Formats: sequence, structure tokens, C-alpha cells
Amino acid sequence: MDRKKAILLLSGGLDSTTLLAVAKSEDYAVYALTFRYGQRHQTEIEASRKIAERYEVIQHVVSDIDLRAFGGSALTADITVPRDRPLDAAGIPVTYVPARNTIFLSFALAWAEVAGAHEIFIGVNALDYSGYPDCRPEFIAAFEKMARLATRSGVEGGGGEAVRIQTPLMNLSKGEIVRLGLGLGVDYSVTTSCYDPGPRGEGCGRCDACQLRLRGFSDAGAEDPIRYLNGPALPASLRGV
Amino acid sequence: MDRKKAILLLSGGLDSTTLLAVAKSEDYAVYALTFRYGQRHQTEIEASRKIAERYEVIQHVVSDIDLRAFGGSALTADITVPRDRPLDAAGIPVTYVPARNTIFLSFALAWAEVAGAHEIFIGVNALDYSGYPDCRPEFIAAFEKMARLATRSGVEGGGGEAVRIQTPLMNLSKGEIVRLGLGLGVDYSVTTSCYDPGPRGEGCGRCDACQLRLRGFSDAGAEDPIRYLNGPALPASLRGV
Repeated sequence: MDRKKAILLLSGGLDSTTLLAVAKSEDYAVYALTFRYGQRHQTEIEASRKIAERYEVIQHVVSDIDLRAFGGSALTADITVPRDRPLDAAGIPVTYVPARNTIFLSFALAWAEVAGAHEIFIGVNALDYSGYPDCRPEFIAAFEKMARLATRSGVEGGGGEAVRIQTPLMNLSKGEIVRLGLGLGVDYSVTTSCYDPGPRGEGCGRCDACQLRLRGFSDAGAEDPIRYLNGPALPASLRGV
Repeated sequence: MDRKKAILLLSGGLDSTTLLAVAKSEDYAVYALTFRYGQRHQTEIEASRKIAERYEVIQHVVSDIDLRAFGGSALTADITVPRDRPLDAAGIPVTYVPARNTIFLSFALAWAEVAGAHEIFIGVNALDYSGYPDCRPEFIAAFEKMARLATRSGVEGGGGEAVRIQTPLMNLSKGEIVRLGLGLGVDYSVTTSCYDPGPRGEGCGRCDACQLRLRGFSDAGAEDPIRYLNGPALPASLRGV
């Protein structure tokens, strides 16, 4: 029998790399999709290429889309990435990129329909999620429903099968994600998480993404193998800032 | 009071140009969005620029996205565009581009959130719609619901207002669309509809889009002002082919 096909959104970060390890452990034939969307952290692209190669995905597409045309986020416009922001602060942070996951999932849906994949993997996480609206289970459920109507599967005699959105990390803490990945043999030294990395791709250690990552490794009782600008740092929440 | 803002998907075709005329007649401040997505009919881009200028939109963004990376359609892959296909044939034609409207609306959603627009105009049409799943009212309703959850509007205290998808052409026949546009003074000589145009942007007169367009003008009792490869043609359905 043919292996099940899955489109997997791969950013080169901790979450999506763990996601890829999960999909591979379940023997999916993986089609990895990465976006160059005008983000500050272009190191993501290079990391995603290495990771896709290491995990022997069937195909890796790096898609260019220009979210800078709209701006509106610290990741895609000239807005400063916040440092040492308390991770439990209320509200949606300025690193939120409007409709980003909707756009990413839409491209994944297009590829799924063409490739005959019935599953899309996305590494969203409702616990340590920085308060982004498009990381919540109710959004994923609504997207899945819309996707069924958007494609051949929604038309009688259209010949398609509905696509399911797989979110195996949804209910895990960052510490649990790190433990899961280490258990699957993930080499986190290749991954990158920082929103505003140093010249050699070092983590700043202070943006939300670095803070969450460092807290994840700390909670998992493991050491983060990537380099940080001022040596291995601790998130503000752990430093008592 | 500030004018209401709307993001409007503009392809340079008959429908979206009529749509723009409708939005302007309702005094919207229009932000027009066009995609260069690897389609055969690049004449669309040039037409959309002229139309956006003529209608004095606030801003016109032409966004590059590469749907050829996935293929799967006669418009984005090396698949022949069908000619003289009966318009009432069952099934989804090969010109269907998987998830295209989902992707277009996702970008529009991103821009709407950044620009503070609460409406997105799209020229979909459920009657003369070529059988595409993502042109149906149930798809639009599901997208709108998903969009509310995807953005600030879906988060308590997120500060956003839900976006509505406006589809004023949904229940009109092609003939009614032409009549509506002519009543609003639309100059259809600038628009382009053909899926596989000639070297000077002439319509082939035989693809689904040309057939639908010609039938629309015929039903409206008007003459189509654009040029066709073999002179003004009639759709196969009217020629009794």
C-alpha cells in the first residue's frame, strides 16, 4: 500500500522540526513547505533546507510571498521586536503577522489537492503560543471546515477527499515538545527560533520566541544546543526580571 | 466620517472590474489586490493596473505568488486549455486552480487587518461559475467564519472587528453582470477574460472564460468591445456546436 501523504509546514524552528519528526515516525510521505515571506529571520530558510534534507522529505518547496507589502507586524515591517516581554502579558504581541497561518495553510491546501495528500501538518500550539489568534484549536477547526468546501472534496462528484489538519503539538507545553523531540532523536542544533537573530544566526535570547524556547529546554531539563548572542541565556521569567 | 475601507480582489477581468465599479458607486475607499500567480494570461496584470488607476483606488498591490510550484491546473501547468467545452458539462474543468480563491482571500484578509478594512470584495459568481468549488456561497460563508477566528477579531480584547466578505455578483448571470456594469459606466474595452490569449491580448473566443463572456454580452444585448483572434466570436453554445 502507498504511504499516506502529508503536506507539512516547516519553518526550521523547534516546533515544526519536532512536527516533522512526529510525521516521519508515523511513516508519512512528507511534502515540506517553507515560506520566504519577508521575515527578519531569514536563517529560517537555511535551517529548513537542512532539516528537510535530513528527514528525506519527498519534496521541499520554498515559496516566496511578500507579506511586507502589507506590513503590520514586527516581523514584516519596521517595528522593533520586543525584548524581555513577560510571556504572560495580556493581548496580542506586535510580532503577530496578520493572517499568516491562514495564508500558509491555504498554500498547503493547494499543494495537498494537487499531490493527493489528505493531511496537512502544522506545528501550532495553544499553550505557549504567544497569544496569536491563528494558533488556537477553534481556528484550525474552522479552517478545516472551510477547506472541505473550497476544494473538489466539497463538490458532489468532484472526486476529492477532505483534507484534515493535523496539530499533534496543539496541547503540549514547550517543555513537552522538547522532550517529545529529543525522544524522537531530533537534533535541535540545526533549528532556529529567534525573531531577530544575530549575524551568524545566533538567538538574541530575549525575544518571545527565544524566551519560549529557552523555557522549553529548561522545563525539559535539557540544554539548548544553539548559540545565543550573549552565551546561553535564561528567559526573563526564569531570571526573575 | 471616514469612508469605509474595502480590500477588493481585482483580476482585470469582466467580473472584478464590474465589482470595482459597484464598490466605488457605494463610495468605498478601495484597496485593490491583484496576483501574478504564474497564470498563462499575464495580460490580466496590465489590465488590472489600468483599471485600478482609472478607478482611483487608494492603493494597488500586485502580489507575486508561485502557484506553478504546485501545478495541477491548465492555468498553472502544462495542461492544454480546453476549447469549445460545453459550458453545461458536468464536473470541475481542468482550468480550476486548486485553492486559488482561498489563497487570494487569505492575502486580502491579511491586508484588511493591517489597513483596518472590514470588508473584502470578491467577484465570485455561483451561476456562470465554470463549476469551481471555491465560487459557491457555502465556501464564502465558511471562509468568513474562519476569518473571524483567524484574526484579532476572534480574540477577546484583541481589538479587531470581524471582516465580511462581500459578493455582490454571486447571484447574477453573466448577462446581468454586463448590464450592471454598463449601467455603472464600465469601459469593458480595458478588461481581459481569456485563459489563453493571443500575442496582443486578444481573446481566443473558445475557452470557458471567453465563451461565458461572449454569452454575457449577447444576453445583455451589447457588443463586446475587446478584440478576438478570429473576429468577434460567438460561444459554442450559441453557435449550436
